[in-house]
Amino acid sequence: MGVMRLGYVHVRVTDLEASRFHYGETLGMKVVHETPNQIYYKGWDEFDHHSVVLEEGGVGLVKLGYKVEKSTDLDAIENRAQNFGCITERMSTGSNVAVGDGVRIVLPSEHVVELYHEIDYVGTEVGLLNPDPFPRHLVGVGVPRIDHALITCEDPAAQERFFSEVLGFRPVERVVTELDDGDLIGSWMSCTNTPHDIAFIKGENGKLHHFAYNLTDWTAIKHAGGIFAMDDVSVDVGPTQHGITRGETIYFFDPSGNRNEVFSGGYQTFADSPPITWTADQLAKGIFYIGRELNERFTSIVT
Amino acid sequence: MGVMRLGYVHVRVTDLEASRFHYGETLGMKVVHETPNQIYYKGWDEFDHHSVVLEEGGVGLVKLGYKVEKSTDLDAIENRAQNFGCITERMSTGSNVAVGDGVRIVLPSEHVVELYHEIDYVGTEVGLLNPDPFPRHLVGVGVPRIDHALITCEDPAAQERFFSEVLGFRPVERVVTELDDGDLIGSWMSCTNTPHDIAFIKGENGKLHHFAYNLTDWTAIKHAGGIFAMDDVSVDVGPTQHGITRGETIYFFDPSGNRNEVFSGGYQTFADSPPITWTADQLAKGIFYIGRELNERFTSIVT
Amino acid sequence: MGVMRLGYVHVRVTDLEASRFHYGETLGMKVVHETPNQIYYKGWDEFDHHSVVLEEGGVGLVKLGYKVEKSTDLDAIENRAQNFGCITERMSTGSNVAVGDGVRIVLPSEHVVELYHEIDYVGTEVGLLNPDPFPRHLVGVGVPRIDHALITCEDPAAQERFFSEVLGFRPVERVVTELDDGDLIGSWMSCTNTPHDIAFIKGENGKLHHFAYNLTDWTAIKHAGGIFAMDDVSVDVGPTQHGITRGETIYFFDPSGNRNEVFSGGYQTFADSPPITWTADQLAKGIFYIGRELNERFTSIVT
Amino acid sequence: MGVMRLGYVHVRVTDLEASRFHYGETLGMKVVHETPNQIYYKGWDEFDHHSVVLEEGGVGLVKLGYKVEKSTDLDAIENRAQNFGCITERMSTGSNVAVGDGVRIVLPSEHVVELYHEIDYVGTEVGLLNPDPFPRHLVGVGVPRIDHALITCEDPAAQERFFSEVLGFRPVERVVTELDDGDLIGSWMSCTNTPHDIAFIKGENGKLHHFAYNLTDWTAIKHAGGIFAMDDVSVDVGPTQHGITRGETIYFFDPSGNRNEVFSGGYQTFADSPPITWTADQLAKGIFYIGRELNERFTSIVT
Repeated sequence: MGVMRLGYVHVRVTDLEASRFHYGETLGMKVVHETPNQIYYKGWDEFDHHSVVLEEGGVGLVKLGYKVEKSTDLDAIENRAQNFGCITERMSTGSNVAVGDGVRIVLPSEHVVELYHEIDYVGTEVGLLNPDPFPRHLVGVGVPRIDHALITCEDPAAQERFFSEVLGFRPVERVVTELDDGDLIGSWMSCTNTPHDIAFIKGENGKLHHFAYNLTDWTAIKHAGGIFAMDDVSVDVGPTQHGITRGETIYFFDPSGNRNEVFSGGYQTFADSPPITWTADQLAKGIFYIGRELNERFTSIVT
Repeated sequence: MGVMRLGYVHVRVTDLEASRFHYGETLGMKVVHETPNQIYYKGWDEFDHHSVVLEEGGVGLVKLGYKVEKSTDLDAIENRAQNFGCITERMSTGSNVAVGDGVRIVLPSEHVVELYHEIDYVGTEVGLLNPDPFPRHLVGVGVPRIDHALITCEDPAAQERFFSEVLGFRPVERVVTELDDGDLIGSWMSCTNTPHDIAFIKGENGKLHHFAYNLTDWTAIKHAGGIFAMDDVSVDVGPTQHGITRGETIYFFDPSGNRNEVFSGGYQTFADSPPITWTADQLAKGIFYIGRELNERFTSIVT
Repeated sequence: MGVMRLGYVHVRVTDLEASRFHYGETLGMKVVHETPNQIYYKGWDEFDHHSVVLEEGGVGLVKLGYKVEKSTDLDAIENRAQNFGCITERMSTGSNVAVGDGVRIVLPSEHVVELYHEIDYVGTEVGLLNPDPFPRHLVGVGVPRIDHALITCEDPAAQERFFSEVLGFRPVERVVTELDDGDLIGSWMSCTNTPHDIAFIKGENGKLHHFAYNLTDWTAIKHAGGIFAMDDVSVDVGPTQHGITRGETIYFFDPSGNRNEVFSGGYQTFADSPPITWTADQLAKGIFYIGRELNERFTSIVT
Repeated sequence: MGVMRLGYVHVRVTDLEASRFHYGETLGMKVVHETPNQIYYKGWDEFDHHSVVLEEGGVGLVKLGYKVEKSTDLDAIENRAQNFGCITERMSTGSNVAVGDGVRIVLPSEHVVELYHEIDYVGTEVGLLNPDPFPRHLVGVGVPRIDHALITCEDPAAQERFFSEVLGFRPVERVVTELDDGDLIGSWMSCTNTPHDIAFIKGENGKLHHFAYNLTDWTAIKHAGGIFAMDDVSVDVGPTQHGITRGETIYFFDPSGNRNEVFSGGYQTFADSPPITWTADQLAKGIFYIGRELNERFTSIVT
């Protein structure tokens, strides 16, 4: 249905300057643009203009941007969103730096998602001609790209239906209170061949649990953990492996308290992959497969 | 345009019984069906009925099967293939064990590709309810799934056009004799978010260079190499890393001389990923990034 | 001074049969001998008769065995231990199954250590002629060998002096309450080129904090974590990396509550390696480098 | 018998300036001293003054330095070497930059080995107080330390006897022409708990096959390979795994043609480890376990 990927995550931070070291030196993202109250970043393996926007003032998610394959996808999505009963508005070119026109939708969960087809092309740091597989001089973790976001919502079933019917995502892994007639309390959904491009779990509307960067592998996860220790980053959980998605992970916080994740691995999914079901009694194993414990911090802190 | 993935590789082997140990004990695939002159296998993380078919008599590729998302994709592909000038035929349910009806196309390169929408569902070895991330008792390498095939053809440009126009694949990495007006001598194309679901390089029509299995990571590649040594498998090249796709690899031969690959890693690609260009003078680096040497065996043996 | 390595760990378990699955199927050790109330195990890469002895009745450490290089080392150690003021006794051949005569010493910390020179040779599972680097059919984690033990004691300084003066160990990393005149509250000591063959931290005399198995690498640590999840093993902390030793780790409990560790990595140490100092305020970082938090369980539970 | 480790490798290079990039930028060693025709380097995890000395003029090995534990070891070694029939001489403090007095021995193989007890202390790049497990800003491969050397000799049996009787090394893995009465054609010997601190194979006296750097793990080996590709380093073989030592490896050449190795892994050895025997017919598997092929270059080029 046209959505290609999570393109940008726009979050609030309490202090822009305090965030600069975290996103620039610890994570190793590159500043591509600045305004008095915003910094725009990209990872080394992303070719679009930016993937993370920090905006001073508060914490939490301003909006998520998903890029669509064709400009006509925008009309179709707008239509379906309106039919679903969502508030939508057209956004014009330039309402986001470097981004073309598009559709802004308020989700059933009150989060804002923007769909767009055009964004300035910058290119990756290895280029398009006889490229090396990685740039030689990475800073800190050296994150290649963003991967997904996990948000909370009061009605996961409605949210899942929205992402399925309006945006064409597929549920890949689902958590229910119990088998058969249980309620949906979490869903990991994909618009690609990865296990998730968005996920939501039952909670307060409009909140961000975390957004994630994709790393190469389990050894890169450990290296990231070392950088976090050197830079005194507050680590929430990990390194560990997820049961859900099979991915490897560390959760950590930016200086404002927004939770980030470094994520690697995960299996291939397809349009015909039958969804996996987790029952709530196994949720701790689904989230943290190795330790099978959910800490209070992980389940309660959202921004 | 509807093609979801490489679903099966059907190859000839000189001696079915001699192949049984290689595919079953060394690679650790599971036999799902047998006929007097065929064995059907699947990997532990594949849910469809089979992904590799061995047929006794000779060597080389009988056909590749690609699964489409919707049954209506079959008509559209048939149409486009005929317009492209290819010979097509409808195949009926049962003409392949466990596979529904579909379209059989003779490629510009004389290889046979089958498109199908239905195949019996068997399920992975970890299941769909609170699954473990891997099955405990894997045999040998324990391959999760097939990944891609590389075939040779006299006219890579025509082949690339076919995969693009008829099947909706995107060129991800392309090798040209020189920049600007150079000829295309190889193309790695994708219908997913991986770097390749098919690849072809200039050579004799109708031949198979290799087909590949996807492994978890670089450490799994080393483990596979250890199993190959224990089982006296003929290794062609590797372990090493590709420049093209960034994947990690070992190439090896089945007892009949068909080349296999174990492959891991690779980056994410999207519908809007600009193609990467390799020039022929850097091809050795593109294929084997670390050693930058192509051996005679690798460039000359096809089946 | 003759001590070559930690040879065996002899622990009490509340229920021998309940322990069998943990040590045999989860960790994958091989039973080499049994008596009505004991099971003797070895890892696949150990050539001596056994390395772990379970004895029914209670929990905690019965004794540690360290193997010496020459039979004359036994006399010298006995002498030095008596001069140090320790209670020693000669143990005769057969007082430990498969072990020759030796010296039994009660440490300043009240733990019992046995020194011996002879133990039946069984051989590793890959043998001595053209060996493969690993056995093909490992069970569960498939631990190659034991690595070290960490015990608690009221007087770490006396304990360190004992291991240094009597057994010839070197302090590799030391934790002090503060720089300059601080008290020693932990010491990691080595008789090999690894970072530790014994460690002790301030606490109750006679107690075991954990004993450890050596795994190949960080990926093997993750695999072990997966097996622990499948077998419902109680995980204490990890996977993570230590600051002290730089090793990678998961701490977990056997069914009786004795803490085990899987450990990999660590740097090379030598007789002339200057000791590393950790100050107590950085201890959490020293123990768990990535997360920099000590949980209550880890610091309070000993057996 | 007192030898602690390989302390330095002193080699000739045809062009000092041409070597600077290789050892400094590609391998990431630090220059600690220079003279008009020499450069002294150390790795980040080495605390002694230097571990590699380049000297302009020709190629090949000038000498190997092994550090002993006690100054009295020098007399004992000198004695034993003379009894063995070797030419020895005392070297005075300063005859090697930063190195104390010692003993210089001409081996049966005509190589020169220097034994010394004192060398200026510089310290590692992570220090001795609450150290991080790795320095943040490594250059290129970022080699932590040297590991071993492999040299060729006409009479491996005499060489092995020398290293055993005079220097106290133990044979860990041995290659013989055939079982029982076969001739020794290679030996991997250790004075530590690693599988080799020196190795020799039958060949021309006085020649260097390679000297090696120790890396963390198999992933670090791949990363090194990437740096070699970026810097156009001539790679001989690898990445692969050895059967002998179980280590992981890439062999490559410095600009003068001296073969280097990056090496990781390997198992623990002890004074009582029974030697492993390889028969010549399995040598290819012993050297390159995965591919089981020795290339002409690897077997014929020495410097």
